Amino acid sequence: MFRNPAIVDIVEKYRPLWALDSMGSLLEWDMETYMPSGSSAQRGVMIAETQLLRQERILQLVDSVSKAEKSTELDDVEKGFLRVLKRDLDYFTKIPPKLLEDILRTTTEGTVVWREARKKSQFSIFKPYLEKIVDLKRQEAEKLGYTGHPYNALMDRFEEGITTDDVDRIFSALSSQLKEILTKVLSAGKFPRTHPLEDFSYNPASMKLVNEEALKLLQMPEATFRMDVSTHPFTTSMSVEDVRITTRYEGRNFKASLFSTVHESGHAIYELQIDPTLNYTPLSRATSLGVHESQSRFWENFVGRSREFMGRIYPSLKSNLPFVAEYSEAEVYRYVNSVKPSLIRVDADEVTYNFHIMLRYELEKKLIGGEMEVTEAPLVWADLMEKYVGVRPLNDAEGILQDVHWSGGMIGYFATYSLGNVLAGMFYDRIQRDLDLKATVASGDISMIKVWLREKLHKYGAIYSPKELQTRVFGETYNPQMLIRYLQEKYLSDQ
Amino acid sequence: MFRNPAIVDIVEKYRPLWALDSMGSLLEWDMETYMPSGSSAQRGVMIAETQLLRQERILQLVDSVSKAEKSTELDDVEKGFLRVLKRDLDYFTKIPPKLLEDILRTTTEGTVVWREARKKSQFSIFKPYLEKIVDLKRQEAEKLGYTGHPYNALMDRFEEGITTDDVDRIFSALSSQLKEILTKVLSAGKFPRTHPLEDFSYNPASMKLVNEEALKLLQMPEATFRMDVSTHPFTTSMSVEDVRITTRYEGRNFKASLFSTVHESGHAIYELQIDPTLNYTPLSRATSLGVHESQSRFWENFVGRSREFMGRIYPSLKSNLPFVAEYSEAEVYRYVNSVKPSLIRVDADEVTYNFHIMLRYELEKKLIGGEMEVTEAPLVWADLMEKYVGVRPLNDAEGILQDVHWSGGMIGYFATYSLGNVLAGMFYDRIQRDLDLKATVASGDISMIKVWLREKLHKYGAIYSPKELQTRVFGETYNPQMLIRYLQEKYLSDQ
Repeated sequence: MFRNPAIVDIVEKYRPLWALDSMGSLLEWDMETYMPSGSSAQRGVMIAETQLLRQERILQLVDSVSKAEKSTELDDVEKGFLRVLKRDLDYFTKIPPKLLEDILRTTTEGTVVWREARKKSQFSIFKPYLEKIVDLKRQEAEKLGYTGHPYNALMDRFEEGITTDDVDRIFSALSSQLKEILTKVLSAGKFPRTHPLEDFSYNPASMKLVNEEALKLLQMPEATFRMDVSTHPFTTSMSVEDVRITTRYEGRNFKASLFSTVHESGHAIYELQIDPTLNYTPLSRATSLGVHESQSRFWENFVGRSREFMGRIYPSLKSNLPFVAEYSEAEVYRYVNSVKPSLIRVDADEVTYNFHIMLRYELEKKLIGGEMEVTEAPLVWADLMEKYVGVRPLNDAEGILQDVHWSGGMIGYFATYSLGNVLAGMFYDRIQRDLDLKATVASGDISMIKVWLREKLHKYGAIYSPKELQTRVFGETYNPQMLIRYLQEKYLSDQ
Repeated sequence: MFRNPAIVDIVEKYRPLWALDSMGSLLEWDMETYMPSGSSAQRGVMIAETQLLRQERILQLVDSVSKAEKSTELDDVEKGFLRVLKRDLDYFTKIPPKLLEDILRTTTEGTVVWREARKKSQFSIFKPYLEKIVDLKRQEAEKLGYTGHPYNALMDRFEEGITTDDVDRIFSALSSQLKEILTKVLSAGKFPRTHPLEDFSYNPASMKLVNEEALKLLQMPEATFRMDVSTHPFTTSMSVEDVRITTRYEGRNFKASLFSTVHESGHAIYELQIDPTLNYTPLSRATSLGVHESQSRFWENFVGRSREFMGRIYPSLKSNLPFVAEYSEAEVYRYVNSVKPSLIRVDADEVTYNFHIMLRYELEKKLIGGEMEVTEAPLVWADLMEKYVGVRPLNDAEGILQDVHWSGGMIGYFATYSLGNVLAGMFYDRIQRDLDLKATVASGDISMIKVWLREKLHKYGAIYSPKELQTRVFGETYNPQMLIRYLQEKYLSDQ
């Protein structure tokens, strides 16, 4: 795989870093699934120590990386290897230890305080932390450096190369056209706002059988993949040979459990299909969060919520959840695709979801740009929510306190959710033309879709940056028109 | 806790080592419980990298430890801290990297080969590895240094301070008296060789309810402890706030599942009751394997297989395993205490168990002392088995290939099983006098036993060496007479 001796040398030295990364993944997976509740303090120490060890080790690579950069004969994989490593190194060389420590401490405490504040629905409790976090993140942006808006430095950490110019362009196209779709959907009534199927209680053990059927339809491998349960579903990867998802069982509104399973499986398929020869290197990961999210959203929405997938999963729903038997396959399709302007991002449907992201993006950009004070944020939040989604939060818990991201210091992250939707639209469009996606899903054998994604995207891991990758596959980057066209066809056509 | 500045400095530096240790525990736990089967290769790399990182870090402490050793004002805890750390450091400073690497590689490969050999019941397949391992272990003993027999250097790694003189003395007392007990038990017939209850099949889900009742009787904490399933039951500890056991469900002969649960719970109680102020230090662990085993054997045999414990667990057995209802509590007591000379150590009863250990001890001592060739081992094994237990293996799988220890390089380990039994007898004797153990178990509230063990033993972690600890509690070390007396009373008395 790697032939350049300077690169081979770093690959060798990178192995303990890979191990520390994988251990970090296992620590988090365990914490959310099986860890006894009383040991969160010691787990916090374990996670922090792992990060410190990693930080210390990666800084030892500075000289080797500088040396390797002087090599003239590097192929794509080797260039990608250095690019990814340098991004990682850059962060730890540019951010002073004191700032790193402040961020770690403030976000650790901040997350605890945010939980408390959300429980009491009182933004004032969390406000001092958010102020501190915004301040630290502005410092981080200055240290990292940027062209244009300082927010670019923060977004780049999650989506390499993305800028406010890109996102402004995307959101400006999305917002007007999504608004139009939303208005029409709501007035047409073909897709309901609510559906009686939301209210039935299910037995988690029975729902698990439905989810296992979904895993079978998605051809998830038995030897290298597993599914467990956690409050907030997630995907984690220790290597291409060990990828795990979690799902949730709230006991009612079964689509939440089913589509959590399909969403996380989408993430997992990406991780599982990375070229195994990249194992133990920093290339054995997704190229960006936006691209990662495109895979989960593609499988969740474009595949999972399609008529064709419903046709495949309906028999399992009917036989495992007795109340489903009273509803036709078409009714279940309406239920899983209901459209309702609502306050909580994670519960939002395909049509309204991106509005939630626009709101957060606008707020974050202003906070980091110094155009707005944290004090004003709850009111701006409520105003923007009314403007975009048409509903207004009555309290902080259903408004500004709903997401964990800010307390964890993840400012610059939200846009990747919409970038994921946009990219999923592009993949859908291309696969639909190359393969006839709908017919493939209807056939019950989706293997060709996985092969397509593996060959065009997954196998490369992080070799190419997200923009390079898109240019290779689509000849263009982040084009929102395919998402819009898909939503128009799905929600506004007469079929 | 620690006041001496030189010690406080090391404690601080030890934290990443603690984290690496705990991660090692989590990696092993996960591997045996939930890890997808296809990822054992990458898990092997993760484990090896963790060990290498740990080795590298501990060697960085050499100077600080030398400095701290010069301090004159050290209390018991601080002395213990240095003692434990030095033992660990000693190993890595005395054993050359090349030898460490040879041991790691040979035992990793050797374990795979041993599995194959056992499956085919063919010692010749494993023989070259055992020869290499014995050779490496002899080299290890030479590098570590020893007084008396070279085997002392190897045993000391598992049981600090133990010598062949100690073990010879203990086994010489045990062997004649156990032989006598065995002959009498077998001829009296009060405890059967086999029992019809062995043959009933159980439903694992029902057996799990019995095991959970056992955990309740042992007052295992919910917030810091959990039980899972694995082929070979074990206990692991990430910290005093996160201790986990596994048990097994083979579907018949339910006592194997029940007493695996109780045995591992005994290990877990020790780990859970270490003084939490020792957390994140090398003192937050058991002082030796023998002492650890004394706790598992104490709960498994002295408590778990008693009439009193049977009285408490019998209702749960009867209600969860329908076939038990046909047998009285007294019959179930006979079943769990059947005595039968048999070939497999892990299935051995209280009376014959130590014979299996004597055999392995005698073999290992001769191999390491150069008094026997590996080639002769299978025949010597069979002869010793016949001499001690009175039965003769018909093939290698039920003879010399039955245990994983040698392939993993754990030579010097076996004696700790018998030391554990001997120590359990000493604890039993003392607790019986201090508390009336039988009445306490009969009452259903065993909390006073746990308090006794915490105060006399558990809370100290590794502060005192096993011999120091015994001297403090008993005024003597490894006295086998209490074990013998207990077995005589239990198996030969007329009550």
